Amino acid sequence: MATESPIRIGVLGCAEIARKISRAIHLAPNITVAAVASRSVEKAKAPSPATNGYPPTVKIHGSYESLLDDPEVDALYVPLPTSLHVEWAVRAAEKGKHLLLEKPVAMNVVEFDKIIAACEANGVQIMDGTIWMHNPRTQKMKEFLSDPERFGQLKTVHSCFSFAADENFLENDVRVKPGLDGLGALGDAGWYTIRATLFANNYELPKTVTALPGPILNEAGVILSCGAFLRWEDGRTATISCSFLANLTMDITAVGTRGTLQVHDFIIPFQETEASFSTSTKAWFNDGVTAWVNKPSEHKIVTELPQEACMVREFGRLVGEIKNRGAKPDGFWPSISRKTQLLADAVKESIDKNLEPIFLSGS
Amino acid sequence: MATESPIRIGVLGCAEIARKISRAIHLAPNITVAAVASRSVEKAKAPSPATNGYPPTVKIHGSYESLLDDPEVDALYVPLPTSLHVEWAVRAAEKGKHLLLEKPVAMNVVEFDKIIAACEANGVQIMDGTIWMHNPRTQKMKEFLSDPERFGQLKTVHSCFSFAADENFLENDVRVKPGLDGLGALGDAGWYTIRATLFANNYELPKTVTALPGPILNEAGVILSCGAFLRWEDGRTATISCSFLANLTMDITAVGTRGTLQVHDFIIPFQETEASFSTSTKAWFNDGVTAWVNKPSEHKIVTELPQEACMVREFGRLVGEIKNRGAKPDGFWPSISRKTQLLADAVKESIDKNLEPIFLSGS
Repeated sequence: MATESPIRIGVLGCAEIARKISRAIHLAPNITVAAVASRSVEKAKAPSPATNGYPPTVKIHGSYESLLDDPEVDALYVPLPTSLHVEWAVRAAEKGKHLLLEKPVAMNVVEFDKIIAACEANGVQIMDGTIWMHNPRTQKMKEFLSDPERFGQLKTVHSCFSFAADENFLENDVRVKPGLDGLGALGDAGWYTIRATLFANNYELPKTVTALPGPILNEAGVILSCGAFLRWEDGRTATISCSFLANLTMDITAVGTRGTLQVHDFIIPFQETEASFSTSTKAWFNDGVTAWVNKPSEHKIVTELPQEACMVREFGRLVGEIKNRGAKPDGFWPSISRKTQLLADAVKESIDKNLEPIFLSGS
Repeated sequence: MATESPIRIGVLGCAEIARKISRAIHLAPNITVAAVASRSVEKAKAPSPATNGYPPTVKIHGSYESLLDDPEVDALYVPLPTSLHVEWAVRAAEKGKHLLLEKPVAMNVVEFDKIIAACEANGVQIMDGTIWMHNPRTQKMKEFLSDPERFGQLKTVHSCFSFAADENFLENDVRVKPGLDGLGALGDAGWYTIRATLFANNYELPKTVTALPGPILNEAGVILSCGAFLRWEDGRTATISCSFLANLTMDITAVGTRGTLQVHDFIIPFQETEASFSTSTKAWFNDGVTAWVNKPSEHKIVTELPQEACMVREFGRLVGEIKNRGAKPDGFWPSISRKTQLLADAVKESIDKNLEPIFLSGS
């Protein structure tokens, strides 16, 4: 293991998020940035490779095609605007490049299915960039939610993610442009809340998805704020809410028959070096009904590596298994990307159909 | 002030909650339990006046009528099943008794309007038993929510209250009986979430109320679990959720343009002697987008008197103003009782009408 060379990653494009992920790649032991591409060499160089945390040896490509053809690159990190994902992810897969693809993974699930098909046909790994999935806290939360004693059966989940975007964002960011990240707040903030909902439901798809009244769209029709209600066949429910127009808030509240989980910083923890969540089990009142017994308690998890470094390390590990030991690509990550996209599409469809419930089949 | 004798309260009925309120009356300086009534003297005596915290001098009435006729009683605490409220509250008001009325205040707003009319005609004070309104924390939360700098404009509120009722409750409690507390979990747990929503919205009624899919009813048609979505004309939204079927959870999350308020024990604080809530203002990310700046901070409020004692003290104060200084009854408390009932009715109506949105007029 120790002698295996790190997975060589190429960064496709110069989105802001690339700076964070480049740093993460630098921190992760098993992966390195080998190359970066932009449509022009100048753009790739500024901000400089140094400030992006790229190694000084990083190769600069002046076109995406050139990076795709680079034989010294194993995998690509793709933070392009969503509308470009299907083209470049498919082309990359066809060149045998493994894919760490930013979310939302596509404009819709039909596009994502093309990406999955290309990955499967070419034996490449695909994982989306939903960083919080890789925080060690997430596994601890999963253990609680899976525990019949401490949590019981899930009854309802509520998840919200809002942030107060400034005027510049609301006018110019790719996330408010129909031709770029067409799903707006739903594809960005909403993606995380949908994922949280799936996470709490053990990735079972709901039976129905109904957008809540009053989504807010910009003049170009891009969602700036919306909500949805999800319902499973056995009566489990969830609400999600996402917005570019309200103070930064990122919650999961999952309530089961015996327990409750709450987390207020599930996407990006308050602090980089630790993350916490709170749980209660069989919470009740004292005899006088004036206070609680079995009050919520807090669980702190030290994060040795920042969560984004955990993500790229895991991606590097999976790619390494394929590259060095002939393993098959892992199917879990694309399967939950697809489900998340499917639900985002359903919320959008419900909004477009005047809040009609959208019925999903399969799981 | 110091020489004024305490307001003399009579307790109508022997509901479990009376024990808590009797203790509160004992703790509050300006009010005392003068009498208690049950349909039989035996029931009124057991559990004994002593264990209920009643003074040894408490007068025992063997009928409700007899208590209503007692000239040494200024006011009544009415914890009867909801279906009996309209009859006994109206009769009590007609006898000039001020009313501390348990929630839900009536089976529907038409009934409650009869109670209000009787109170107005007889110049008596009415206040409902929504204890948390009187916790000193609530005023502090209101200050935050009203602060344009710290909170800005409200965008959305989410409130939930669930508790895992045991089998005995689900079979026998008055709250699951259509002839007693006909609104079930909506009138009980839901009442608080509706009040929280109104509280955060400065008691402005929403324009529409839509029940969420999948309410759970018992065989008699009483709601055990439900949710609703509320929307105001200017785009503010709220979701409420209430249930007898999930672990004890009681949250308010209110998100404004500049701030967020969160409280996890808003109805009954974790501890009797202090209560807290958390707020953030202009929360954002650090430069690397790997942690927060302007993180939520916790505010602790010491509660010298338990919140239920604060409630009865306030009720006693208002009654004292009327009795001793000829003041008019305070209109705020019945007005918010009425709005809460109106919204509970709207949720019920939406459930009964297959989740149709219910449009409210006026405020």
